[in-house]
Amino acid sequence: MRRPDARPLYVQVEAILNDRIVSGDWKSGQALPAEPELAAELGVSAGTLRRALARLEQRHLIERRQGRGTYVTQQTSEQALGQFFRVRNLAGRPVEPDTFITGVSTGPASEEEAARLRLRQGEAVHRIDRSRIFEGEPRIAERITLPAALFPGLSLPLAPAQLASEIYVHYRNAHGIIVVKSEENLSATAATEADAAVLNCPVGTPLLLIERVTFDAAGRVVELRVSRLDTRAHRYAVEIA
Amino acid sequence: MRRPDARPLYVQVEAILNDRIVSGDWKSGQALPAEPELAAELGVSAGTLRRALARLEQRHLIERRQGRGTYVTQQTSEQALGQFFRVRNLAGRPVEPDTFITGVSTGPASEEEAARLRLRQGEAVHRIDRSRIFEGEPRIAERITLPAALFPGLSLPLAPAQLASEIYVHYRNAHGIIVVKSEENLSATAATEADAAVLNCPVGTPLLLIERVTFDAAGRVVELRVSRLDTRAHRYAVEIA
Repeated sequence: MRRPDARPLYVQVEAILNDRIVSGDWKSGQALPAEPELAAELGVSAGTLRRALARLEQRHLIERRQGRGTYVTQQTSEQALGQFFRVRNLAGRPVEPDTFITGVSTGPASEEEAARLRLRQGEAVHRIDRSRIFEGEPRIAERITLPAALFPGLSLPLAPAQLASEIYVHYRNAHGIIVVKSEENLSATAATEADAAVLNCPVGTPLLLIERVTFDAAGRVVELRVSRLDTRAHRYAVEIA
Repeated sequence: MRRPDARPLYVQVEAILNDRIVSGDWKSGQALPAEPELAAELGVSAGTLRRALARLEQRHLIERRQGRGTYVTQQTSEQALGQFFRVRNLAGRPVEPDTFITGVSTGPASEEEAARLRLRQGEAVHRIDRSRIFEGEPRIAERITLPAALFPGLSLPLAPAQLASEIYVHYRNAHGIIVVKSEENLSATAATEADAAVLNCPVGTPLLLIERVTFDAAGRVVELRVSRLDTRAHRYAVEIA
C-alpha cells in the first residue's frame, strides 16, 4: 500500500478489492485468496483486511460460507428478488412475479431521463416496458431506462426460461454491471387509461408510484425505473431500523 | 457468564447489556464502563465484548464518541426524525414537520388493532389523532394506537415547545419505552371526506397509506400507526442496499 490517500486504510483496501470484482479480475462465484495471503499481498494487518471484507460483505459483493472461505457473490434471481423486490401479498408473504416485456426501444434521453441517469440530454438510452404478474393478475406496469453506453447492443433474454431470471442477474452476466444499491421515491397516483389497460383496473384507481435509480459497484447510475403498482391486493414492505 | 444458553456468547452479552439499558440500570446519555473493566466483569474476551457492542451500536442503543468513549444513546428529536421519518420534498430534501394533536382517547382495541399490537381484542388502547404540517400545508393525517398497559396514564406534551419534540423521544422520557425498529406496509388509497377535510385536498386524491408497527428494545410491539400522506408535493424515500 503506497498510495498517498487520506481515507482510512480499510476503506482503501475495500476500494482495491471492489475494483478487482468490478473489473472481472475476480469473477462471480470465485473463491478469494486466504486472508493471511491477501493481507500479506496488500501489506496490511489481518484486522484491516477483515474490516474491508466486512464492508464488501455488507454491500453483498462477497459472501462468507461457513468453514469454506469467502467467495465473490454469484447473484441469483432469488437473491436479487430478496434484496430489491419489496412487494408482499396481504398475508405478508413475498410474491414471485412473472415478467412480460411489452416493448424495447432505443432513443435520445429526455430531459428528465438525462437528469436522473446523470447523462447529457439526447444521449442514447434503451427503454424497456414490462408488466409483472402476481398470482395470475398484472399488478405492476413499469418502464426501465438504461444508458445505452453501459449496455452496448442490449440483448434481452426472450425465452420464457430466461425471462424467469431477474434482470439484475442479466445485467451482470451479459453486461458486467454489478448492481449494489437503489434509491426510491414513493408517491401515490391515479391510474391513467394506459395503466388501466395494462393493469386491468378502472381508470383513477390509486396506484403506488415507485421511482427508482440504481447504482452499480463502480458507483455509476446504471438504471432508472418507474413502476406503477396496483395495491388493491398487495403491499410494499419497508423495514426501518 | 454462567448461563446455560445455546446462543453465541456475543449474542448473550448483547442481551445482558440490552437489559441494562431497557431496565434503566444504564440511563440515557450515561457513559458505559471502560471496555477492559466491562469485559472482566462479564468474564468474556475483549473481542466478544466488542462484537456485542457493535450490535448494540447498529441498533442505535449506544453510540461511540471519537476519543471519548461509549454512551447510552440519548435520543433527540433530530435523531428520531432522521431515522424514522422518510418524507422528502420534491427537491429531495428532508422536511421538518409541525405536529398538531387533534384528538386523544382511550378504549377497547378493535380486532385489527389487537392483531397488529399483539393484544387480546378489547384490551385498552390509547388513540392519538394528529396532523403533520410541512411548509405550512397539512400533508399527513394519522392515527397512533398504543397499548394502554405500556403507557399508563398517558400524558402527552401539549405545550408548543414540547410538541416540537418527536413522540418517540416522549415515549422514552415519560414511559421508558425505547423504540428501535419499525415495519411498514405501503399502499395507495383515495382520500375520503375525512382525509379531504384534514389535508385540504379534493376527495379522491391519491394518498400514500403507511401502516407501521414499531418495536422497542425489549422486543415488544409498542405502537401501531396509520398515516395518510398527500404526495402532491412530497415523496417517501427508501434506500435499498
